[in-house]
Amino acid sequence: MSKEGPFERLQALLASDMARVNALIEERMASEHAPRIPEVTAHLVGAGGKRLRPLLTLATAAMCGDRGDDHIRLAATVEFIHTATLLHDDVVDESGQRRGRPTANLLWDNKSSVLVGDYLFARAFLLMVETGSLRVLDILSRASATIAEGEVLQLTAARNLATTRPTYMQVVRGKTAALFEAATHVGGVIAEADEATCAALMDYGDALGTSFQIVDDLLDYGGTKALGKNIGDDFRERKMSLPVILAVEQADDAERAFWARTIEQGDQRDGDLQEALAILARRGALDETREVALAEGRRANAALAALPRSQMRDLLIELSDFVVARAV
Amino acid sequence: MSKEGPFERLQALLASDMARVNALIEERMASEHAPRIPEVTAHLVGAGGKRLRPLLTLATAAMCGDRGDDHIRLAATVEFIHTATLLHDDVVDESGQRRGRPTANLLWDNKSSVLVGDYLFARAFLLMVETGSLRVLDILSRASATIAEGEVLQLTAARNLATTRPTYMQVVRGKTAALFEAATHVGGVIAEADEATCAALMDYGDALGTSFQIVDDLLDYGGTKALGKNIGDDFRERKMSLPVILAVEQADDAERAFWARTIEQGDQRDGDLQEALAILARRGALDETREVALAEGRRANAALAALPRSQMRDLLIELSDFVVARAV
Repeated sequence: MSKEGPFERLQALLASDMARVNALIEERMASEHAPRIPEVTAHLVGAGGKRLRPLLTLATAAMCGDRGDDHIRLAATVEFIHTATLLHDDVVDESGQRRGRPTANLLWDNKSSVLVGDYLFARAFLLMVETGSLRVLDILSRASATIAEGEVLQLTAARNLATTRPTYMQVVRGKTAALFEAATHVGGVIAEADEATCAALMDYGDALGTSFQIVDDLLDYGGTKALGKNIGDDFRERKMSLPVILAVEQADDAERAFWARTIEQGDQRDGDLQEALAILARRGALDETREVALAEGRRANAALAALPRSQMRDLLIELSDFVVARAV
Repeated sequence: MSKEGPFERLQALLASDMARVNALIEERMASEHAPRIPEVTAHLVGAGGKRLRPLLTLATAAMCGDRGDDHIRLAATVEFIHTATLLHDDVVDESGQRRGRPTANLLWDNKSSVLVGDYLFARAFLLMVETGSLRVLDILSRASATIAEGEVLQLTAARNLATTRPTYMQVVRGKTAALFEAATHVGGVIAEADEATCAALMDYGDALGTSFQIVDDLLDYGGTKALGKNIGDDFRERKMSLPVILAVEQADDAERAFWARTIEQGDQRDGDLQEALAILARRGALDETREVALAEGRRANAALAALPRSQMRDLLIELSDFVVARAV
């Protein structure tokens, strides 16, 4: 993200809170009995993650006038849950790289990734217990269940050409939107915002997370123009992401045979990615994917537009614009 | 366990509560969006697990006069956490069998085991939230963290001849005792037992779980007599369980070389298990292990002996005797 973007301005505004979040994360991931735990997590924490999710909790709490310490605990909770999910994803996807570094499961092993992820989940729940808010515990337990459901659904949907848009949207909720929604929601809850505000924050988080993920899936096919970044990971992993789903919906017999061979059967040859990109362009699947992302961005902003104007609210609207602007 | 043992009498006494626990488990492991989840869990639930941990929660709650529904929720919570741990263990140990059936990760795959385990953890926390008891949430979050720590510690201790008794005891806490302790503790807490009673229930659960695990580790080397069951799994997996730790403490040069080759370097040959058994017998390591288990059993019973006499209390004392009697 650019130096002057809304993300950096949010980071600057919330820098002292985020420093407290970072200190709390470091303190709570320590383990008296199992020194490997901070070794594994330090690798992730030190990798310069953007801390987007905890930033959302800090921003929404600040917007709603929070004055206590619990928003710090909840921001750390959200990052612990996110990091645990990444660790378990490392096992899941057999992916070799994350954030440009070797994943935890290559540096260590599958076992450590699973167990250290479990440890972070447990620590996340302990942090929530410290806030004394059963409502927050309810929100983040539900989000955790939705995340796991979405990941399982992605497993069963992968490589299956019959995957539909509603299934994809449910996967996106699990992969990304559920935790975004919980992150913005608990910011409002802990600041004792009224119900209408909390509902708006939930909608914003859900729509922001959804657009964020759809843009990611679009950029994996290069977006609507060549960006010079690595593309085609999802194609090689045979994921049924939105561009492919939309192209399959309109496929003629030859295209259907192409998708069946490359995605369903996994028989991929030289030139297949270029062919996939050509079909996606021909069928307008990338444009249509971008439209869905833009609609989610509009939904995010409409949710916040109903709330009183403030610097924080306006920065969150800009953030949503920035997320979808990556796709344009 | 025999037909007339304390475990079966507890099961009979608590049969109607346990039927409610089973119904709740079935209801809550269902997933609207990811049908694979109940498929994977049904495999475990249908495998005829003994439900020892939830039985402990029901028994201690009944002993303390509980009359609400929350002990049902907590018993299901404890079983969910246990099942999640088994699923994640399946990934961890690359074990091929559990309870005589193929493990989930062979029937399905590592990915499903990790994610379905995560789903069960999240559902467990939601059940706790429904009780409205922050104290219960605190107890079981802490237990979950201790479980993960213990499993990580076991990873780092495995195949390391320098592993000490205190490290082994910490591993046992994580693998077994922490959840036993939490299971008995929350039974008392949810029945609003006084602090002295809760403390006694914690001690009982911790000591019972510890003796249970030590007896398991002893029986893996056949106990003090041949039992005709499969032995030597821990040896083949190069685990530093208590019998080996005690034998290494007293090893002469030749024995030390044997343990270094078989456990540390993993160079195991025909006849090595028999040699290991001969060394363990010669060094009295199995007798000493049995003594440690018996001492834990006495600690369990001493904790309950301080509480008022009741049918349930006496059955729990008998249960502890039964657990260690397997080792005699």
